[in-house]
Amino acid sequence: MTEKLELLEKHRSFDGTQLKYRHYSKILGCDMTFSLFLPNREKFEAPPLIWWLSGLTCTDDNFTHKAGAQKRAAELGLAMLMPDTSPRGNSVADDTDWDLGQGASFYVNATQSPWARNYQMYDYVVTELTKIAREEFGLTGPESIMGHSMGGHGALVIGLRNPGRFRSISTFAPIVNPTEVPWGVKAFNAYLGVDQESWSKWDATKLLAEHDGTQTPMLIDQGTGDSFYNSQLQPEKLADIATSKNSPLTLRMQDGYDHSYYFIASFIDEHLDFHQKYL
Amino acid sequence: MTEKLELLEKHRSFDGTQLKYRHYSKILGCDMTFSLFLPNREKFEAPPLIWWLSGLTCTDDNFTHKAGAQKRAAELGLAMLMPDTSPRGNSVADDTDWDLGQGASFYVNATQSPWARNYQMYDYVVTELTKIAREEFGLTGPESIMGHSMGGHGALVIGLRNPGRFRSISTFAPIVNPTEVPWGVKAFNAYLGVDQESWSKWDATKLLAEHDGTQTPMLIDQGTGDSFYNSQLQPEKLADIATSKNSPLTLRMQDGYDHSYYFIASFIDEHLDFHQKYL
Repeated sequence: MTEKLELLEKHRSFDGTQLKYRHYSKILGCDMTFSLFLPNREKFEAPPLIWWLSGLTCTDDNFTHKAGAQKRAAELGLAMLMPDTSPRGNSVADDTDWDLGQGASFYVNATQSPWARNYQMYDYVVTELTKIAREEFGLTGPESIMGHSMGGHGALVIGLRNPGRFRSISTFAPIVNPTEVPWGVKAFNAYLGVDQESWSKWDATKLLAEHDGTQTPMLIDQGTGDSFYNSQLQPEKLADIATSKNSPLTLRMQDGYDHSYYFIASFIDEHLDFHQKYL
Repeated sequence: MTEKLELLEKHRSFDGTQLKYRHYSKILGCDMTFSLFLPNREKFEAPPLIWWLSGLTCTDDNFTHKAGAQKRAAELGLAMLMPDTSPRGNSVADDTDWDLGQGASFYVNATQSPWARNYQMYDYVVTELTKIAREEFGLTGPESIMGHSMGGHGALVIGLRNPGRFRSISTFAPIVNPTEVPWGVKAFNAYLGVDQESWSKWDATKLLAEHDGTQTPMLIDQGTGDSFYNSQLQPEKLADIATSKNSPLTLRMQDGYDHSYYFIASFIDEHLDFHQKYL
């Protein structure tokens, strides 16, 4: 357990560097890993930073290995930071189901036992890992945020709750209304308790509904062949609220794509191009 | 155990389709999986086929998940076929070391017990899987072959031994002279026996030396940060023979890249472009 960063991997990747670190998180009370792509710092001294939040069951590796994002990030001079999806380790509460506990934090600050002790992922991302990005890697430039599924929910919630900080938000197949779908209801009951009042600030659709005229540009890609589309995702709910609020949200239905990283890889360049416009 | 193809996965990927199948291989005597990328067949009715052979410890998944090759293949209208790297299963001989047995076939036809019964990967690729590609998927067009490390060795050997069939060969960090390096000596002793006469036809450097003027275009990328470069790979050996034989081989030393898929991803588009010229 050390707060010092431990370098686990370093690879030249396109014209940049792919890194993976371990560190002790004070906020989460456990060792964590994260992955970081840096463009060529000789060419891009002060790169903007794009956060990527992964979905259920993922770690920081899934996007890093499978999305094929490094090529365009290297070209555009963008840094990308990939946190793990939950606190980890034998001393951290867990569940036998894959949609609760480790790998399934939903990026909230839990208030209920036994989760509250470690499951503070919102604070981990927004403060602790942010500090590391800024102080250890000099990533003090503009920021945007993106994510997939549960991580799409996380990106929307974190982005919408910090409008001065994140210039744009993009997501693939996000859970936009977790308080109304099975995955979210299960997780929020566990992490936040039965009082549904406390759930609203962790639900992008409710956040947007309660806020007047969020002007953060948002891009959502949703595959029509995604088996979770109807039951868990329903991005139209967020798009409809955005329309009624005159918030700049583009929802693109992508014909035949599923929930996998093959879908993400197919459109990740367009997401990076989208963010680049605002960074 | 069925010779019929069983579809395990199907994903829309860029403008094409990523597939994974299981089938019973008569030649190997076991169930095998392979992955196949097909470009949009409405636009590319008769796509050329590029084979990808992976390295030690890999399956058909590594390249499929990590190389990021689908984008350019979809654009160029190329099919890509990724076999597994060895026979598999509880009834198939194995070794406790990761560089022998399952995941480490070296793409030879083994002659020694207990390997000979299943380890016939050369024939599996060159005949059985070829027949599947042609008859089940209509991939009867021109072919090229590429691979990484042990799979770079496989691609070179298969390409050089079938010059009328494979129009071009490209490799990342290939084992070019297995009869002279630790990985190859260990594997060939096991699979082919102590008589080193029988090893030559499985060694790209020896094949090229014995052949007058192979004209198959070859491209090799080698990272200078690859920890196996000096001990196991030594691509200059093949490049020197090619020069002396006037065979068209380009060896590119890539500054700072290692042996990982981050290296492969960084240059895979250029390899596909290279093959496209001959297909």
